[in-house]
Amino acid sequence: MSDTPNAGLPPQAEVVFDCHGDATGKMRNDLVVHMREPMLEGPFELATDEGPFHGGDASAPPPLALFVAGLTGCIMTQIRAFAKRLDVTLDDLSVDCRVAWDWTAKGRIYETAPKSFEIDVDITSPDAEEAVVALINAAKKGCFLEQTLGVANTINHRMKTPDGWKAG
Amino acid sequence: MSDTPNAGLPPQAEVVFDCHGDATGKMRNDLVVHMREPMLEGPFELATDEGPFHGGDASAPPPLALFVAGLTGCIMTQIRAFAKRLDVTLDDLSVDCRVAWDWTAKGRIYETAPKSFEIDVDITSPDAEEAVVALINAAKKGCFLEQTLGVANTINHRMKTPDGWKAG
Repeated sequence: MSDTPNAGLPPQAEVVFDCHGDATGKMRNDLVVHMREPMLEGPFELATDEGPFHGGDASAPPPLALFVAGLTGCIMTQIRAFAKRLDVTLDDLSVDCRVAWDWTAKGRIYETAPKSFEIDVDITSPDAEEAVVALINAAKKGCFLEQTLGVANTINHRMKTPDGWKAG
Repeated sequence: MSDTPNAGLPPQAEVVFDCHGDATGKMRNDLVVHMREPMLEGPFELATDEGPFHGGDASAPPPLALFVAGLTGCIMTQIRAFAKRLDVTLDDLSVDCRVAWDWTAKGRIYETAPKSFEIDVDITSPDAEEAVVALINAAKKGCFLEQTLGVANTINHRMKTPDGWKAG
């Protein structure tokens, strides 16, 4: 990191990621992710699968594993990036994250809803507890995924039809 | 999948994932994920890193790549699982997902907010368009991550202190 963090960046920017997924194995999906803005990064090649119970071959982690790993990695990355900027020394950092969902059968299918999110942060630092608390609070606001989960988002779907893409 | 989907499962269940992350390289985090409920699956070993611009070694995808891949994989998995249950034939399936965030500099640090989510579903099926639309709509309700993103979630933090875990 440079000594003038945000230097060279505009005061506001858009950060964009996209993913193309192809259904391959029984339940496996091969996924190619790019960061598109503010710069191009990738391709990042990932995959999801399900265990035999869900009709898959367990050839890759399930989608929720990628999600929980992404959330954990996001808050950790923010803590580390902001530690330098807020002059907090991190001798060590580990995070435990636990996410629970409700699952409800509805005839032949089912519905789901989020239930709880818990993130436990273990920072080893010679600095005062208040400085570490301030760091964690700044990291929460900088964490893309924590900020995303904290608000009700609208997801826009489109479906390919013979007449072109149709909003769903 | 069995012919009686949900068979052997209670009408309601809790689905729980957890992740332990250790800060390792400059910005790399090594992440171990388990499904804990309704059955044990894993460990799934994942990692995140950042590119040189963010002070990392680019040894793994950034956290947002895992998130976008998880979201794409989740809706694809739900479409495939529910196609069998709703008797819709899937000859092929691909999904393009695009997520944008706003990034705003705040002195030496920054804040973020979600901006847009777009999911384009391309299904090749001999079945009627209405049946495919019904499948996609069922998959939205069954998709853990889409349901999670659609509501404002509370994330509970704790921080390790010499006096034990402290709510943040």
